[in-house]
Amino acid sequence: MTKPAAPIVRIAFDADDTLWRNEDIFAHAQDEFIRLLLPYQNEDFIRSHLAEMQIHNLAHFGYGIKGFTLSMIETAIELTEGRVTGSEIHQIIQLAKIMLASPVELLEHVESVLSQLKGNYQLMVITKGDLLDQESKLARSGIVDYFDDIEIVSDKKASTYQQILQRYQCSAENFLMVGNSLKSDILPVLDIGARALHISYHTTWAHEEVSDDILGQYPQLTQLDDMSQLIPWLSRVSLR
Amino acid sequence: MTKPAAPIVRIAFDADDTLWRNEDIFAHAQDEFIRLLLPYQNEDFIRSHLAEMQIHNLAHFGYGIKGFTLSMIETAIELTEGRVTGSEIHQIIQLAKIMLASPVELLEHVESVLSQLKGNYQLMVITKGDLLDQESKLARSGIVDYFDDIEIVSDKKASTYQQILQRYQCSAENFLMVGNSLKSDILPVLDIGARALHISYHTTWAHEEVSDDILGQYPQLTQLDDMSQLIPWLSRVSLR
Repeated sequence: MTKPAAPIVRIAFDADDTLWRNEDIFAHAQDEFIRLLLPYQNEDFIRSHLAEMQIHNLAHFGYGIKGFTLSMIETAIELTEGRVTGSEIHQIIQLAKIMLASPVELLEHVESVLSQLKGNYQLMVITKGDLLDQESKLARSGIVDYFDDIEIVSDKKASTYQQILQRYQCSAENFLMVGNSLKSDILPVLDIGARALHISYHTTWAHEEVSDDILGQYPQLTQLDDMSQLIPWLSRVSLR
Repeated sequence: MTKPAAPIVRIAFDADDTLWRNEDIFAHAQDEFIRLLLPYQNEDFIRSHLAEMQIHNLAHFGYGIKGFTLSMIETAIELTEGRVTGSEIHQIIQLAKIMLASPVELLEHVESVLSQLKGNYQLMVITKGDLLDQESKLARSGIVDYFDDIEIVSDKKASTYQQILQRYQCSAENFLMVGNSLKSDILPVLDIGARALHISYHTTWAHEEVSDDILGQYPQLTQLDDMSQLIPWLSRVSLR
């Protein structure tokens, strides 16, 4: 006989590419960046060099648009052996300002699902990135009032989730995380014995991808097609 | 007869230039930046232009090293009318990495004061800037264990402090803030009816300066010469 599942008390949502579109904004900026450097190098070379620079610089700059922009500038200098012009670098900084001002486009079903959950669960956002940028997106999203708590963190590891649960005095078995990144939103949450639902986004940053070998270690992994499936999933869990 | 002052339960410290040196790191990077651009413009012009750019970009980039670096790059492009070289911009990015890796130098008396307060008060840090950078400095400071709570915020306004007090269920009359910035650490805290102690640092970023007219509106403003005076001040208050 299996023990009945503990009730879910607190549901946390990742923000970028879970509540609203984000990767598209980076992808678009990256396309513009490549277009800018095409006179110097070929597309594949620019793309792979930028990806490497981003990963290399994560330790210095962390996640978010400002760090990405500094990586674009550094890539531009390296790939052109310093021949990139001031005007071209200025265009990269303008890309950053455009990214920061991009409208916040909610994903399908997000608002209706939140309105159904509100009052029945403690709802929170756990997101990583630039502090000001994430706050600004939350403020512009129109959905901030659905959430009881907001946590903007520099990285999402098992210890990050443990600290947050401790802070809100929530035990792991009463916690559910919903997000699009297996690496950041799902696996570390399963690692601490909480539940997590993966809703994949049409595009994933390579750095957030997880190998099939590692995924095989998580037989309890649950995927939903989109946010609308969250409500029926919660009903099934509560009946178990 | 004056009402006796409420007991202080929670003490919050600003971090940069209150717990450890910070402005010097920015000042040094700025000197290097000026040295780099001296072939193009004179020192005063570079300095004032960078200051303007920083303020202008705060709304986009917020506080912290990454935003400051993007402002240095943008200033370099503008002041040289695009003639700045890739190698020079690369040196600016290297300045950012040096700033981010600077050792954390605690200010005098900080550790001994914290060790005396620990256990008698709820102690916390309230700091603004880049999330990853502030976390990294806290981790390297060696004093993180003295604090019960850490709050890294994008700005320090009266509403910021109100939200934090609400979060920790602390009433304003039981709260004391200690910091070097009148604008960020002191005046907004006095505005919400809590207490605040100003410990000035030898240098203040112009953006954080407050006019005498505004200061005149805060007769309750209390200044300490350095952190060691905090303990005697607390003793006096508790005897009142």
